[in-house]
Amino acid sequence: MSGDLTRIHTGAPQNLTQRFAHRAAMMKPSEIRSLFAVASRPDIVSLAGGMPNLSAFPMEMMASVAQKLVAEHGQEALQYGSGQGHPKLREQICDVMALEGVRAHPDDVIVTTGSQQALDLISRIFIDPGDVVLVEAPSYVGALGTFSQYEAQVVHVAMDNDGLIPQALREAIETTRAAGRKIKFLYLIPNYQNPAGVLLSPDRRTEILEICRKAEIFVVEDNPYGLLGFDKPSPNAMRAEDSENVIYLGSFSKTIAPGFRVGWALVPQSLKEKLVIASESSILCPSNFTQLAISSYLSDQPWRDQIASFTKLYKDRRDAMLESLDQHFPKGATWTKPGGGFYVWVTLPPEIDTKALMPKAIVAKVAYVPGTAFYADGFGSWSMRLSYCYPSPERIREGIKSLGAVIANEMTLRGIN
Amino acid sequence: MSGDLTRIHTGAPQNLTQRFAHRAAMMKPSEIRSLFAVASRPDIVSLAGGMPNLSAFPMEMMASVAQKLVAEHGQEALQYGSGQGHPKLREQICDVMALEGVRAHPDDVIVTTGSQQALDLISRIFIDPGDVVLVEAPSYVGALGTFSQYEAQVVHVAMDNDGLIPQALREAIETTRAAGRKIKFLYLIPNYQNPAGVLLSPDRRTEILEICRKAEIFVVEDNPYGLLGFDKPSPNAMRAEDSENVIYLGSFSKTIAPGFRVGWALVPQSLKEKLVIASESSILCPSNFTQLAISSYLSDQPWRDQIASFTKLYKDRRDAMLESLDQHFPKGATWTKPGGGFYVWVTLPPEIDTKALMPKAIVAKVAYVPGTAFYADGFGSWSMRLSYCYPSPERIREGIKSLGAVIANEMTLRGIN
Repeated sequence: MSGDLTRIHTGAPQNLTQRFAHRAAMMKPSEIRSLFAVASRPDIVSLAGGMPNLSAFPMEMMASVAQKLVAEHGQEALQYGSGQGHPKLREQICDVMALEGVRAHPDDVIVTTGSQQALDLISRIFIDPGDVVLVEAPSYVGALGTFSQYEAQVVHVAMDNDGLIPQALREAIETTRAAGRKIKFLYLIPNYQNPAGVLLSPDRRTEILEICRKAEIFVVEDNPYGLLGFDKPSPNAMRAEDSENVIYLGSFSKTIAPGFRVGWALVPQSLKEKLVIASESSILCPSNFTQLAISSYLSDQPWRDQIASFTKLYKDRRDAMLESLDQHFPKGATWTKPGGGFYVWVTLPPEIDTKALMPKAIVAKVAYVPGTAFYADGFGSWSMRLSYCYPSPERIREGIKSLGAVIANEMTLRGIN
Repeated sequence: MSGDLTRIHTGAPQNLTQRFAHRAAMMKPSEIRSLFAVASRPDIVSLAGGMPNLSAFPMEMMASVAQKLVAEHGQEALQYGSGQGHPKLREQICDVMALEGVRAHPDDVIVTTGSQQALDLISRIFIDPGDVVLVEAPSYVGALGTFSQYEAQVVHVAMDNDGLIPQALREAIETTRAAGRKIKFLYLIPNYQNPAGVLLSPDRRTEILEICRKAEIFVVEDNPYGLLGFDKPSPNAMRAEDSENVIYLGSFSKTIAPGFRVGWALVPQSLKEKLVIASESSILCPSNFTQLAISSYLSDQPWRDQIASFTKLYKDRRDAMLESLDQHFPKGATWTKPGGGFYVWVTLPPEIDTKALMPKAIVAKVAYVPGTAFYADGFGSWSMRLSYCYPSPERIREGIKSLGAVIANEMTLRGIN
């Protein structure tokens, strides 16, 4: 097959961009986005991306799952499906969530095109322009992008090594309300947070739920990494403690594979219908083909053992990264010690601008994501996110060594020791 | 696997629905939606749904395409992909569009989760609350739902057996602007329209493009059925005539299968970046797995012959429906004679309310979609959409016979002859 690739121009040219909606001004390329083209060069050790490592994925087995699915159930798998998602998969999703203490009814689960779509739908249903969304400081870049497209005002709440700080949350609520602004919800990633890598402690989970109930703010709990704990199981999900005031988002992107684009939202019953209607208007229905592929995999394959293999693989990489950070990063740099997930968050002396440093890192053949990407307010210029999920331990060591030298050099240049 | 299906209630119950955004009030179940539960009962001849008929689909072949894809290219197929869509598939999409005279560059194609997502993204980028969208009268229910969620005001423009009437378009533009309203775009389905089944004549295509260019309104051309013409090829797409002022939407849902959820938008170059950013914020990226399944199918299989088989199948059903309409529908009913696609539009005497008639039709074991579903303004109460795509010709004849009797009976009751 071959296409004629000439662009043709006919008619009076018009500038369609003059007719954008108000919200379109908020649609700007993220810092991560422009970075990825460079970071994906094979000579660069990319500590930038958050792609799961599929080297341990049982491809032959999934190939035969897909074959059997189409051959035996093609009339269903290749047809339109339910806007809410396939009933069988929604039952299985409840079983997956039960591993983290969540008791849920399949009727309250909505299958989405990755949990990103769930973020989009929740924003659509709740956010009027100017509404405040509270998020961790730093927070997931994809969520920040979505909230800003719905013209929310994002307010960051401080975290430490035990996750979001309850007292900081109380103060943020108070300050925001004193300024006359309406808070819609708190968005957080309690397990092995993206980008900070920290775990919200069990006590704080309870306390934060109490604060939010009292303040009549609901909680959006995003949990893609909960089953990827290295040393011990994660604490129960926040949704396990509060079924009325928590919207829970899950995903198979990290526990199976992201190419299926299957995630979900578990919502209080009163929200279900609106969410389904919003999703139908957005995509009509999620893919039966990918949903049933996941469903067959969950039914027929040892998926929990498989998650254990993934976890082992990520733990080795985490170890490699923490060891080489100790070895190669200069004094004055500090970093989180993730107990699971994909990310380490590094804080440098405030004189170092990690965005300005990127070209030097690229020359040294290593890439990361500058900290400002994870803030809606320009903060984070002396921090960076390092991902250990994808490269081999050897490459991670090599990358950290190079990056340590770049940072040390920069500190020397600026007279920091 | 088994889940504990008990709902638990903890914490102070809150009413989250009080915190909905303004736009959430527009998220209402469509008339089609509540109908489908009934229409899908196996004893009912459903002339309601628009599901493609996959009985002629080569399942065994697609099963081996899927198997081979995962076994040989799983690392790519199951991974995150490009927000814009897979480059190879975007090239192939240009080849598909070339069949309808469209010359396009793969850089200007954005792959979406069905063309419904493209409608959503275009609405997001262009519609401010209160903006006017012009549509055919009647128009596609899924588009109406999306436009209304973005709080557009929908203005219907009259059509006849040759499609949208240019003079009616001129008048609608004038009236709308005289009322001080801002028109964002014209949305139309030129080929075998859903729900009316009519084809926009080539002359009118040119004239409508001219009107829109002159009025500085852009055109959203939705073309899911263009390759499903029964008697002769469809006229060239409107986008073939105007690459600057037309956003073209395509889909593999009717020419391959809907379960993949793969559609696309072809946009003027100036819109590409915004659309990609909006899509990333909405779903991060479309599924590599389903995109590459479609791509392999297009590369390795006789897809044009397959479309010819589908077309033959739909033509037989169209013939069965038109014959039995002639035979069984009472005088006073008129209907369109589609040259392709899935739908016949029936107009009854204005005294007949097709929505009120539905329960009687269901008792007679036949279902359709009442005409009001396809209007944003309550019009259409004496019309209905009949789909011939899915049931067998025998079932279609049976359904039309029953429905004809229901209508004849109603007319008698109301003293119409």
